[in-house]
Amino acid sequence: MDHASRLDSLGAGLERPLLVGAPASLRYLTGFGGSSGYLLVRPGAGSVFVTDGRYGELAEPLVAALRDTELVVSTSGLWDVFRGLLDGVEVLGVEAGHATWEFVRTLESETGVAPEPTTGVVEELRRTKDADEIAALRAAAAAGDAAFTRLRELLGGVSTEEELGWALVDAMRRAGGDAADWDPIVAAGPAASIPHYRAGGKPVGAGLLLLDYGCTVDGYHSDMSRTVWIEGEADPEMVRVYRAVAEAQQAGIAAATAGTSCGDVDAAARDVLAGYGYEEHFLHSTGHGVGLEIHEQPWVRRGNDDLLRVGDVVTVEPGVYLPGVGGVRIEDMVLVTGDGPEVLTESSREMALG
Amino acid sequence: MDHASRLDSLGAGLERPLLVGAPASLRYLTGFGGSSGYLLVRPGAGSVFVTDGRYGELAEPLVAALRDTELVVSTSGLWDVFRGLLDGVEVLGVEAGHATWEFVRTLESETGVAPEPTTGVVEELRRTKDADEIAALRAAAAAGDAAFTRLRELLGGVSTEEELGWALVDAMRRAGGDAADWDPIVAAGPAASIPHYRAGGKPVGAGLLLLDYGCTVDGYHSDMSRTVWIEGEADPEMVRVYRAVAEAQQAGIAAATAGTSCGDVDAAARDVLAGYGYEEHFLHSTGHGVGLEIHEQPWVRRGNDDLLRVGDVVTVEPGVYLPGVGGVRIEDMVLVTGDGPEVLTESSREMALG
Repeated sequence: MDHASRLDSLGAGLERPLLVGAPASLRYLTGFGGSSGYLLVRPGAGSVFVTDGRYGELAEPLVAALRDTELVVSTSGLWDVFRGLLDGVEVLGVEAGHATWEFVRTLESETGVAPEPTTGVVEELRRTKDADEIAALRAAAAAGDAAFTRLRELLGGVSTEEELGWALVDAMRRAGGDAADWDPIVAAGPAASIPHYRAGGKPVGAGLLLLDYGCTVDGYHSDMSRTVWIEGEADPEMVRVYRAVAEAQQAGIAAATAGTSCGDVDAAARDVLAGYGYEEHFLHSTGHGVGLEIHEQPWVRRGNDDLLRVGDVVTVEPGVYLPGVGGVRIEDMVLVTGDGPEVLTESSREMALG
Repeated sequence: MDHASRLDSLGAGLERPLLVGAPASLRYLTGFGGSSGYLLVRPGAGSVFVTDGRYGELAEPLVAALRDTELVVSTSGLWDVFRGLLDGVEVLGVEAGHATWEFVRTLESETGVAPEPTTGVVEELRRTKDADEIAALRAAAAAGDAAFTRLRELLGGVSTEEELGWALVDAMRRAGGDAADWDPIVAAGPAASIPHYRAGGKPVGAGLLLLDYGCTVDGYHSDMSRTVWIEGEADPEMVRVYRAVAEAQQAGIAAATAGTSCGDVDAAARDVLAGYGYEEHFLHSTGHGVGLEIHEQPWVRRGNDDLLRVGDVVTVEPGVYLPGVGGVRIEDMVLVTGDGPEVLTESSREMALG
């Protein structure tokens, strides 16, 4: 990943200093994956990466690979460091959607700087995925697919939702994907009507099964959902729900072209479900961007007039949830290209498990 | 876990309404483990749990088990809900260390309420662990110990740091611990000098190996570190470092009694290392509280005059790091009892791996 050029692009677009602290943005700009770091980007005056003693040795080669950037390892506390670095700075951009209220209040009182709220500055750069990032996203999606291909075999070795979730993570790991920081959703039977149910002790092996899982490669996430009927004849109501969701998902994917608004992609899927009378059972948005964060912009939701662009990677994941009965969700990752939507996750979308 | 009584205690201590949004605090008060929820606690007027459609069905039984609490599942957006709920409220306590600056600014502009920063209100209740919580922490610690007991066997089945990390997680899972949302630190040889190195592709199986890992039980974390020399004669410099760290750790544990300040516990460990001339190679604090968060109060660090109390659970984890050579850290979880410190993690503290 070419962190140096990313940082140069950021610096070139700034009018005043910006303090970056959001972990995914730090990783995007520097490769740093620790839990405590700040990057002070000063247009025309170079950047400073600040971390503490736990991360100094880890940060050194990363900072050395950037241009015009120095490393400060704080020993006497963060505020001492910031007081020195911000001497003479009047207004400092701070990521309002990441920094806590307490951090901003302390920054103000400890350094005398005037914090200015910024939103989405680095996120805007992160949104358009470059070739290295697309390669990582493809590899993560492929690891998810590899796990799904083995679903029948994995089911043979487990008895509960929780064990199956673990088996999926293990299968992705064997296919080159690191464990994500969220657990798979594995919902058997009526539990599938809870969109963000995790995985419990209910038995798997027959009937309805909803899976929503992913992994990371180089920090980039995959995210996919499949719903299957495992043995015998599927419940007719769920078959109808499945058909509606599958059609809605295809309509959403087809709509995901450059220049189409996120709201229109959402509407394309939502309208199909409304045609089946399921609109009120679709409890969430149609999708979200995916990259260094599992949920990031662009937001594929109702009324969002943000236009999709080449290089966006979004999920398309309509679902229908009937409380106490069950639910269906089908989710793929879609790359917006100059030639239209390209689906990155390739697993079968049949309701009956092969 | 008796969530209802915890919420009652919180409400009884408040003078004005408080909005709770920190995930660990929500879990502590309600059992809710989803990613999107708020609890509005109004002294004398009951509480309201607010979530969105993805979590409604999951939240229903949890909220039903609380007293004087209603559930609102937002359909038209969070701010619509808050405008209604906060009608007539002038000042609202907001968790300054959790809420983002953006959230606070939007809350103010959308509802007209005056946010007041609060710090550590629920964290203060969470700090003293009750019997259910201690049982969960013991179980999590035991799962970590169970994995360490199998270290020799696990090493036989893996070749890299990363694979060993995974094997430790799997071993804890088999012993009843859920995967934590942080990956094990597995550092072989000189990498052990980076305190928060994660786990890479370096081979394991000979020489120095530093492990720092844990799991969760019912959401409660375990956290332990061991450093071992795997085959043959240990490097004499590392043997001396090991002796210093082991002594420092025992001194820190012995100091962890009710009524002792956190700073004095830190000093007890730090002074031993200083006596060996390693003070500048101890790059972090001596320890931290552990519970629903892997790092929480009390903070066992230099100069902290906060006194330990019965029911605190803290780590004691001094370390010495020699860049390019290696590092040693030994970490245990310690429960402060009326009869002195009780170490919850029981694994061997020998440098040579048995």
